[in-house]
Amino acid sequence: MLVALAGGVGAAKFLRGLLRVHDPGDLLVVGNTGDDLRMHGLAVSPDLDSVAYTLAGLADEERGWGLAGESWNVREALVRLGEPGWFALGDRDIATHLLRTRLLGEGASLSEATAELCRRLGVPVRLVPMSDQRVETRVEVDGPDGPLDLGFQEWWVGRQARDPVRAVRFQGVEDARPAPGIVEALAAAGGVLICPSNPVVSIAPILAVPGIRAAVAAAPCRVVAVTPIVGGAPVRGMADKLLPAWGAEVSARGVAGLYAGLADAFVLDAVDAGQAAEVAALGLEPVVVPTLMRTVEDAAALAKAALEALGGGPGNPEGVPR
Amino acid sequence: MLVALAGGVGAAKFLRGLLRVHDPGDLLVVGNTGDDLRMHGLAVSPDLDSVAYTLAGLADEERGWGLAGESWNVREALVRLGEPGWFALGDRDIATHLLRTRLLGEGASLSEATAELCRRLGVPVRLVPMSDQRVETRVEVDGPDGPLDLGFQEWWVGRQARDPVRAVRFQGVEDARPAPGIVEALAAAGGVLICPSNPVVSIAPILAVPGIRAAVAAAPCRVVAVTPIVGGAPVRGMADKLLPAWGAEVSARGVAGLYAGLADAFVLDAVDAGQAAEVAALGLEPVVVPTLMRTVEDAAALAKAALEALGGGPGNPEGVPR
Repeated sequence: MLVALAGGVGAAKFLRGLLRVHDPGDLLVVGNTGDDLRMHGLAVSPDLDSVAYTLAGLADEERGWGLAGESWNVREALVRLGEPGWFALGDRDIATHLLRTRLLGEGASLSEATAELCRRLGVPVRLVPMSDQRVETRVEVDGPDGPLDLGFQEWWVGRQARDPVRAVRFQGVEDARPAPGIVEALAAAGGVLICPSNPVVSIAPILAVPGIRAAVAAAPCRVVAVTPIVGGAPVRGMADKLLPAWGAEVSARGVAGLYAGLADAFVLDAVDAGQAAEVAALGLEPVVVPTLMRTVEDAAALAKAALEALGGGPGNPEGVPR
Repeated sequence: MLVALAGGVGAAKFLRGLLRVHDPGDLLVVGNTGDDLRMHGLAVSPDLDSVAYTLAGLADEERGWGLAGESWNVREALVRLGEPGWFALGDRDIATHLLRTRLLGEGASLSEATAELCRRLGVPVRLVPMSDQRVETRVEVDGPDGPLDLGFQEWWVGRQARDPVRAVRFQGVEDARPAPGIVEALAAAGGVLICPSNPVVSIAPILAVPGIRAAVAAAPCRVVAVTPIVGGAPVRGMADKLLPAWGAEVSARGVAGLYAGLADAFVLDAVDAGQAAEVAALGLEPVVVPTLMRTVEDAAALAKAALEALGGGPGNPEGVPR
């Protein structure tokens, strides 16, 4: 069984490609929940939903987030009622959140609620949150009138990431435990993939849950990370504003440095081939391939390269357990 | 100040007429919450919302319930997710329920949440739930396979009231208290109106809250009830299926009998003029006028007749305190 650590849209696209070249029944996706928020009383899990919607074939490909065929009538009515409108929830999306909120309210864990939602949405893989405990990604920024401590979505969606970031922290993570099944899956994994997601606010929260980083490090298999940075900029999102606050360069090699000691190989884009030697110097096997996923075929080719790297690279198709 | 006891749509139409002939600032509306339910985790108060939407000018006049310009996208998505669809919530309506549910979840009482919703919706009168405690109207029926104990909406909306009713009860009412302000308003009231609402599942739950019936009976003013039954049938709803289980005839005089000893006057329709003597024999002054409210002008004329009866009838315009 493969285990994939996943953020939101980038991971979702990669995983959709992966399912073209790998058995969905042989994959556990561990999703970031640091961005989760309560909005209008609803339990919203943006990254879990991006993965679920994309893998169920329900995502809006053009807009790049949310559900296809979405409408916004509840949101308009909420704004008319004086409720905040900065985090736009579509009508169909709200149905998902209503169901999740109800299940959680009835005592289900987030893992259980996620499994139920995935079953009903028709998600073909097992998707688990990194933890059933609340971990909240907080961003400390320089606001217009001094320092601000914001929830991640508040900064990213609500303030369009306009405030310079001083620090990122994962509130509550010290009391969190890996969701059921994660540590066991890692202990028996045939490969671990770190998806092309924001290293600071998508992958780091997962690894920060006590026990997960150690389980990845101890996994009886290779670990392959795929770069979310191409040509010195994130393919999508705001990693460029966060990596410096995390002490890393906004580059493939900067991200590779964050995974040094944990990953065995690092997939970087052909445009960054010049950084391959530096990646190798960090102790990671560089795998240089095209990484932009304009189509599902692109994503499948990228996933295939990552799978080959898990097996020890094209030169070692039988795989070399670490 | 007038106090009106109100159910759903019939009361809402009557009250809209009343506001044409009476100062909105001089009216407290006490709403039935026995029909309230949790649906998809949302706190839904159908009768309070019917009154609020109608008085705010937001109701769908043609459909007869809910908001004008409504859409059903969340509901469709919920049904696709396998959630029950029998209680249709519109998208705009869901915004109301989301706000109420959030306020209640944050610790507001139903009175406080209702006041906040009314302020935001633009409801021109003070509307309070009969109680901040949960009172649940339950209907015991003869189901196809034996007795069933159903929530009111489950029977009425979910099963289209097809099962014969054996009994109605108000679960939890013994532990309920009148919402803040009701008893005080009744103690100082210049008149009490019992709206043309279902006597069994709209007015009886209000009167069953310990303290409310006694406060109505002790009010220093006259009490006038308006019939919801015209020509032996309810103008709207299912009172015909409930009155027999409540031991009352489906007629104006049958309803009048339920208010005997409590109301001073009973407004019945001209088509039921033949029952006026029987109403009088019950100790209620009969007021015979047209009661069908096809237009807001009809409703205003009916409200005017009820106001006159509060004042002691057209023959006693100065009013006769009881």
